Parts: sequence; structure tokens; C-alpha cells
Amino acid sequence: MYDVEKIRADFPILGREVNGQPLTYLDNGASAQKPQVVIDAVTRGYAQEYSNVHRGLHYLSNLSTERYEAVRGTIARFLNAPSEDHIVMNSGTTEGINMISYAWAAPRMGEGDEIVLSVAEHHANIVPWHFLRERQGVKLVWVEPRDDGSITAEDVLEAVTERTKLIAITQCSNVLGSVVDVKAIKAGAGDVPVLVDGSQGAVHMPVDVQDLGCDFYAITGHKLYGPSASGAIYVRPERMDEMRPFMGGGDMIHEVTRDAVSYNTPPMKFEAGTPGIVQMIGLGAALEYLMEIGMENIAAHEARLAAYAAERFEGLNWLNVQGKAPGKAAIFSLTVEGGAHAHDLSTILDKKGIAIRAGHHCAQPLMEHLGVPATARASFGMYNTTDEVDRLIDGLELCHRLFG
Amino acid sequence: MYDVEKIRADFPILGREVNGQPLTYLDNGASAQKPQVVIDAVTRGYAQEYSNVHRGLHYLSNLSTERYEAVRGTIARFLNAPSEDHIVMNSGTTEGINMISYAWAAPRMGEGDEIVLSVAEHHANIVPWHFLRERQGVKLVWVEPRDDGSITAEDVLEAVTERTKLIAITQCSNVLGSVVDVKAIKAGAGDVPVLVDGSQGAVHMPVDVQDLGCDFYAITGHKLYGPSASGAIYVRPERMDEMRPFMGGGDMIHEVTRDAVSYNTPPMKFEAGTPGIVQMIGLGAALEYLMEIGMENIAAHEARLAAYAAERFEGLNWLNVQGKAPGKAAIFSLTVEGGAHAHDLSTILDKKGIAIRAGHHCAQPLMEHLGVPATARASFGMYNTTDEVDRLIDGLELCHRLFG
Repeated sequence: MYDVEKIRADFPILGREVNGQPLTYLDNGASAQKPQVVIDAVTRGYAQEYSNVHRGLHYLSNLSTERYEAVRGTIARFLNAPSEDHIVMNSGTTEGINMISYAWAAPRMGEGDEIVLSVAEHHANIVPWHFLRERQGVKLVWVEPRDDGSITAEDVLEAVTERTKLIAITQCSNVLGSVVDVKAIKAGAGDVPVLVDGSQGAVHMPVDVQDLGCDFYAITGHKLYGPSASGAIYVRPERMDEMRPFMGGGDMIHEVTRDAVSYNTPPMKFEAGTPGIVQMIGLGAALEYLMEIGMENIAAHEARLAAYAAERFEGLNWLNVQGKAPGKAAIFSLTVEGGAHAHDLSTILDKKGIAIRAGHHCAQPLMEHLGVPATARASFGMYNTTDEVDRLIDGLELCHRLFG
Repeated sequence: MYDVEKIRADFPILGREVNGQPLTYLDNGASAQKPQVVIDAVTRGYAQEYSNVHRGLHYLSNLSTERYEAVRGTIARFLNAPSEDHIVMNSGTTEGINMISYAWAAPRMGEGDEIVLSVAEHHANIVPWHFLRERQGVKLVWVEPRDDGSITAEDVLEAVTERTKLIAITQCSNVLGSVVDVKAIKAGAGDVPVLVDGSQGAVHMPVDVQDLGCDFYAITGHKLYGPSASGAIYVRPERMDEMRPFMGGGDMIHEVTRDAVSYNTPPMKFEAGTPGIVQMIGLGAALEYLMEIGMENIAAHEARLAAYAAERFEGLNWLNVQGKAPGKAAIFSLTVEGGAHAHDLSTILDKKGIAIRAGHHCAQPLMEHLGVPATARASFGMYNTTDEVDRLIDGLELCHRLFG
């Protein structure tokens, strides 16, 4: 039995008011709130247990290193990676995908090589590939979502040619909520490496990178109820071996002389400088929290929310829901034809204490595909309730009355 | 009047014990402890005011954006940058220098172009340049420290040739404590851009980037009594204009289509994805704290500590202090010829609650220059006391008795 009220009580910010109304936080697609266990881990990290990690021999340094390195194992468990050695810790998906672009793709792709990606990708999974286009003549091959917002394995695999060097695809659209069958993509792609943007996927469903078979799987801690600028990327060992270093500095080296440099073994080879020690410890606490509740339970709760919200949206015939793929996540991008602009919706809802996001959601090619400049996005998380869906609907009805 | 006891009371961790002894934290060169104001800013950020920043229209997003963007101004004031538009926020010096290497240096340096750097640089200011050597044939030109550990402007400028495209130099050695006159280097270098690694410098002395005249000045928040993975780099506008993007993703774009991408104006052009929101807010609190006490007062306190420590070390004739440059910062690298290894010193001192660091301190070329495999480094901060110097000396004398 999923006790959403008990879960809500774990998140201190959900007790606050905004504009004199109880906070209804539906901006989880942008970033999620933090449970007390995460805040406590961070506070304890700074107030009682802080030191730099690695290479220290004093008590606090050993303690800090132990706490920090344990998180690598937690992330491996969360993603069911075969070993924590396949986990590179970083500041989130943007850094993760850029690392793959600079460290793996750039040295092995040239003029005319192709990267397949969907039109629904987040800019974090577009711009690093545009760099390769601009700088090295790589060709981007785009896969269209179908009319209902689905991005199918069939369509993705149809875009693959003998020049395809990478498929870079989200597991869950941050705008449409569409869930992509990345397992089928990898199964059909043969030797073509598959990079999965798990920024949304890992938040809304259980992830098993061995089952998916993917080569890279990137996660973002702040969307996973963890601290700012925490994250990681799973890298399949064969790909790890093919990667050259990305950032240079401390920790990632074996030996530095004036004339030469040799590198540490992976994953340390890809983690330069003092890492985000305390936020990674906080991310560890967040993932433990999620695993204790169970990602399958969270997914089931969110599926109930999604079904209820979809049903209630159906009752508003002046409102368009962008993306109605079967099994979509609880992410709803709303537009009103000839009516209120997305930004107006957001502003009015905010007066009612309801936080949604209006804009292009870092997905401009998708906005162009949808033929809208922006959407108003309500994105749900593990702590949201059907009451909050009702509050959103009431707020949208108010907008409709105001803007007609 | 510098009230060090009052300052100590601001740092909760300094009240704790380690191995049954009061903590004597002398590992500030690796990372500094955090005052309560920083911890509170982080806690408040997560527990009451959290949201993603930029482009939100709801209350928490606006609040979070306001708090986060205010830090840019705080950093500009701390460094006396002419405008906050010259500040790129990041996770610290390693990311800052790598950004300059990838975004500014890589596209404009080729075979035989030279980078001048000192043998005392931290790996963060060496390895990114080794990448350019390995990948593009750039030549690294090394400047030796003098016998007392000084790195002089004269020696640096002597290494400059017509092929020099960059001088990359620390303001303060993290091993020797030597302070480098980067103002004189820039004044003598003419058109050659100067990158200053301010990881240690900004912690131990007031910094004025306009007075220094440098092109790049990198700081690391966790050494500045701020959170993990916070930091920034000052970039002179002419250099900013010459930089291409480093990481790609959200926030750094103007427009993304399938065929093209255009970029945001600096500094946003160089900040991809959701930033380290809460740790940057914490860094803002740390810098405000430092400025309230006054960097000149902190520098004076540390100078008194350095003088006292130097005098006490003189009394231990079996101990070598590596680096005795005039005006050096309170960073002491210790070795014992034919006696205890640096790691042994650290382990014994730890039993007395004294945290120092043993190793190569991410400065292997300097270790080679000094002819030692490692040093035991005691590095002081704003909260350290002469009593702690005495405790260190007592501990070292114990080591000497144990290891002879």
C-alpha cells in the first residue's frame, strides 16, 4: 500500500504555502523536491563529517571517502549495473552526455558519420551532437514522433544506416511523457551503440541497464529527489575502454611528468578534481529512499495519477494535451488553441500556489514539430496526489474563465 | 581585532573530537570547513526555497533564480570584476581551467604553440594542457621554482617566446605556499593571455582581477569555505568573445533547430544545463561571510600564523620545510630526511586529532623537482590558532621520537 501522505510528510517544503495557498508542486520535470533524509545527509556531511576525499590518511578524510565511494555502489544497485566500476559520477545528465560526446564520440566520428536522435530530445541530448556536426561534419538524423507522441523502436531503427555511429535517445520525453522502448532499440541496433538519456526515465520507472542492454545511461540527481548538480552515467565497459579522458586534473591521473601523463583506471579516469562530495552523498540518500519505497511502487502510483489526470483533462474540451502515447509518464504538456498562452496559465496557477512550468522545456525542435511556441507543463512526482490533480483542473478552469 | 575564537564558533565541525582528541584541522589546502551560515543557506535552499532556476514563472522558481543569480554579483564583488557578466559559474577550478582549455585554447593553438607554466602547478593546471600537447602538438614550457621555492615573474617572463599563446600560473602554490606576482607577469607579458589558478590564492589574500590584469582567474568554492562542487571563473570580455561553447545543453542556447544551433550571450553561453543551484547559493553565503570579516584581516591573521609556525619549525632541526619564499602563505610541506615517511607522520598525527595531508598533493612534477615522493602538508585557514601550531609541533616531536 503506497502511503502518499506519509511520503509527503518526508518532504519539508511540501508543508509550505505559496501565495497564501498550500504549495501544489507540479514542476517535477524541471526538478524534484528533497526528502528530509537527503537534507540531513547533506547537513551532516558539512557540519560533522566533512573533508576532501581520496588520498587523505586522516580520520575525516577516510570517513568522507567511505561515505562518498559508497554512493557509487548505491547508483550501481539503482541501475542494476553489473559493477560500480561502470559508474562515472558527475553533476548530471548534461555533463554525462557532454563527456560521451567529447571523450567517446569526438575522437571516432568524422564527416558524414551519423547520429540518430529523436525530435523530442532535450537540448542536453541535442547540442553536444550539434557540436560534432559543426566541428567535425557529423550528420544528425532525426526521428519524428508519431501523431500520438510515441517514439517507436521501429521508427528509430528505420533511421539507422551503415554510417550510424550512435543512437542517442531519451527513455522518456520531458515534454510528452512518451516512454521509449530502448531495449527494443538496442536489440535491433546490433553493433550500433545506444546512449539513453535517463533524466526522466530513471525517475518514473525501474531501470535495469543490463536488461536494456544500452551502452550509456545518464541520470540527473536533482530530478531524482537528490541535491543540485549530482548525477552519474553508466558506461558499458567496452565503451569505457574506448573513451579518452574528458576533463583533466587531480584524481584522474596515474602519473604526471613534464613530458607525459598517464591515466588512472576507469571510472576514476573520468572524474577530474575534487568531486561533488556532499551532494553525491545526498544523492546516495535519495536513491536509498527511492529503493526502499520501490521504483515499481512509485511507477504504479504515478500511473494511477496519470490515468486520473488524463481523464480529468478529457473533460476540458478547450484544452490540448500534447502527447497521448500509451503508457506515458505523468508529464502533461498543455496548450490552449486561440486561448491563454502557456505563460499566462503558469502565472494564474501560481496565484493558487500551483507550480507548473511554461516554455519550450529545452526541447525547441519538438516545439517546432508540435507547431507551438511553448507549452504549460504539469509534471508529477512520487508525492503528488489526485487532490492536486483536482486543484490543477480547478486552476485551469479559472484560467479558461479569465482568458476565454 | 581578529577574534579567532568567535570565528571558530561559527564552524560546527571544529567543536567535534577525532580519536578522542579535539579536532585540529590543518588540511585546508585540500578543502576548508564550512561555517553555519553556509550550512543554513544550503538547508534553507532545499527545505524551503527549492526549485529549478531560469525560465520558471512560478514563485519558487523565481525565488530560487533570484537567490542563485545574486551569487554571480557576489563573486564579482569578491574578485572585484568589473561586471558580473564576466563571471562563469561552475563546479570549481578543475572545470574552469578545462573550460578554458576546450573552449578557448583548443580552437586557437596548434603544433609548436607554447604554454608557459610553472613546475609547481597543481594537476588541474597541468593535465588540461597535456591534452593539448597530446592532441594538438602544443609545447609545454616549464618554469622552475628557485631554491627557496619562489616562482618569480622574471623567470616566468624569460620563458615567454613569440610562440607563447598562454601563461598558466598559480597565484599560490598548494605545496610550497609561494605567492606568485601575477600582476607583474601580466604587466610584462604584453599581449600574451594569463590564466591564474586562484584555488589557493583567493583563499589566502584579497584578489582584485582588475588590478592583476589577468585574462582568466579560477576559484574553487569548497576551498573558500563554501559547498562541494561550487566555483567560478572570471573571464576578461575579450577572451570571452573568443571562446566557443564548452558543454552543450539547456540554458546556454539561444535557438536550437534540427539543422542549426545558436548560443546565448555570455556568461550563460558557458553554463549548460541545470546549474549547481543550492551549492552556488551556499558559496554566495561563504563569500559574504569572508567579505564581512575582510580578506585583508584573514590574510593578516594567517601571516601571523605562518610566521609563528615557521619559527617553531626552525626549532625542529630534523625537519625540512619545503619552500621558504618570502611572504609565503600558511601552507607547510614537511619532509624528514631518512626518517618518518610523510604518510607515517599523517597517521601518527591523526591519532592526536590532527588532520594533515600526506602525498603528492596533485603536484607530481613539483615532487620530482623537490626530489621527494611525497610531503606531509599542514595548511592553515582563517580559523586556525597558534595553539594548533603548538599541537602540531608536539605531534611532530612525538613522530620523531617514534621513528627517530
